[in-house]
Amino acid sequence: MMRIVSEIEKAEKILVLGHVMPDGDDVSSVLSLVIGLERIGKTVKGSIDYTIPWFFYELEEVKKIEPYESLIEYEPDLIVVVDSSSPERVGRFLPLLSRKRTCVIDHHVTNTYFGNVNWVDPTFASAAQMIYRLNMELGVPYDEKLATINYMGIATDTGFFRFSNTDSRVFRDVYELVKLGADPHFVSKMILENKRVEQFRLFAEVLDKMELDLDGKLVYSYITYEMYKKYNCTDEDSSGFVGELRSIKGVETAILFMEYPKGKIHVSFRSKDWFNVSEVASKLGGGGHPRAAGVTFENTDIFEIIKEVIPLTVSLMAGGKSGISKTFKEDLYR
Amino acid sequence: MMRIVSEIEKAEKILVLGHVMPDGDDVSSVLSLVIGLERIGKTVKGSIDYTIPWFFYELEEVKKIEPYESLIEYEPDLIVVVDSSSPERVGRFLPLLSRKRTCVIDHHVTNTYFGNVNWVDPTFASAAQMIYRLNMELGVPYDEKLATINYMGIATDTGFFRFSNTDSRVFRDVYELVKLGADPHFVSKMILENKRVEQFRLFAEVLDKMELDLDGKLVYSYITYEMYKKYNCTDEDSSGFVGELRSIKGVETAILFMEYPKGKIHVSFRSKDWFNVSEVASKLGGGGHPRAAGVTFENTDIFEIIKEVIPLTVSLMAGGKSGISKTFKEDLYR
Repeated sequence: MMRIVSEIEKAEKILVLGHVMPDGDDVSSVLSLVIGLERIGKTVKGSIDYTIPWFFYELEEVKKIEPYESLIEYEPDLIVVVDSSSPERVGRFLPLLSRKRTCVIDHHVTNTYFGNVNWVDPTFASAAQMIYRLNMELGVPYDEKLATINYMGIATDTGFFRFSNTDSRVFRDVYELVKLGADPHFVSKMILENKRVEQFRLFAEVLDKMELDLDGKLVYSYITYEMYKKYNCTDEDSSGFVGELRSIKGVETAILFMEYPKGKIHVSFRSKDWFNVSEVASKLGGGGHPRAAGVTFENTDIFEIIKEVIPLTVSLMAGGKSGISKTFKEDLYR
Repeated sequence: MMRIVSEIEKAEKILVLGHVMPDGDDVSSVLSLVIGLERIGKTVKGSIDYTIPWFFYELEEVKKIEPYESLIEYEPDLIVVVDSSSPERVGRFLPLLSRKRTCVIDHHVTNTYFGNVNWVDPTFASAAQMIYRLNMELGVPYDEKLATINYMGIATDTGFFRFSNTDSRVFRDVYELVKLGADPHFVSKMILENKRVEQFRLFAEVLDKMELDLDGKLVYSYITYEMYKKYNCTDEDSSGFVGELRSIKGVETAILFMEYPKGKIHVSFRSKDWFNVSEVASKLGGGGHPRAAGVTFENTDIFEIIKEVIPLTVSLMAGGKSGISKTFKEDLYR
């Protein structure tokens, strides 16, 4: 961390970048660092080259995160990339990374150390905890706004303190942030109690399509592009569904296949206790953590992908049993 | 608290009681105190005069909580009642309270101070935090088991750190308990990731019956006894549903009417920000907190109850508008 502190102290114009398909930790980390650097007098811009899910805008500071287009003229001395395991994750900013001095702050074990200075520490449950430490080291003053924004990243990346990464350091950090004014209830309402009625209708159909395999240890379902259209939903609406599938008693692995837009299939994997889903995702060209991983395919058919992924998962979980359940096969060929 | 410490120090045989329809905080508080008192050498029994939901038995210590029947011969010097706002909450142990010296430890603002010694403090988010302090004062040694059991009460009564009662003291306490060995992931899996597939099917029908009123600020639905039977579910399966309904964007108040068994209607109220649902529940003879309340009716018809409760809620929320939505009325008379 100290090398990043000295890079920041030397720089005047800084650009903070997050990753495509941003989650709560990414939005939190970009914004906490942008606000922190502003407060110590730096000229700073923050950007994520992707649509930020609408509910984050309940925090009005999220407007500070600018689109790629508005930063084409901006020439920073230093780029700080947060929560991103590889350079492609910054989207269209990628060419800029080779032209500008770059610091990387990340907690993913798969990080490729693509910066000039890299602070990568997978023992942290969230990048937001690393930003908190950096801000403290830089002497950034905290108020309720910044504490709440910084809290959001820790809460979301631990599944609101439910995942196995929830250690005592997580609770110590949020204890300190709540003392500094963070509002846990505001964050949980914004993220968890902002569901659209249409999401519930779509989820009911996901349950209807759901299949169990390996005596209930594997559960999977899918959402075709037509299903998204039918309920007036997008892929933003289904982001929590795979976690719901995992919450079924006896389930070890949950997989959700999502086609959005037409022909682009994102496969999301979750596990509970012992199965390393990042192993399946890696074999398919994706990546992630042992308990949460994913892979995306372009220009293909969702049912072809299902027929490839389920037998692979079954064989990795059980050593080669069955494949796709009988009822599901019928559904495929109907 | 110090008066309770001295009562406990004087007593040799102690009985710890929780309340009917036990939740995670109640199970946690009874068990944390029973284990704590055992560890300092007391003769102690714990009981809850009600079925404990099956998933709590993943903590094998829950077997220590004995049924009423097995304690008929037990003659304690002292009874400690935890997490219970009034004496009837102890079920069939009620007559025993007037015969034995009784201490009350509770965090409900509605507590009637029915003990000889009462430690009632509504500033605590959970009774489990009060038991933690009492155990510390008594010098109880903690290990992973006791820390996990004690943690469970704090996690569940704050909705896993999502509700408005989640303050910095909550996080300080769980930080300490996790340092003492508590396992947050075990608790969240036990409570939140143990859902039956049938629950999901029942929930899909609850969504299908769901009605919105007051421009989406009020949402309600119902489960008849026949619906429970159809999906092979009981009222234990639907305990989280009303919270799901509240999680809809724009909803302030969610109400779920549940008929289990036949003719017994439990009405569960939840609110998000400003509406005091305990006011409605009180008018109907029930009670609770401003954000979570309930009332139970015996020997009646669920649709008659809906026709009474919805207009009352609407008038309290909005000052007398409409009543039951048109589509819902049609459903009633179909």
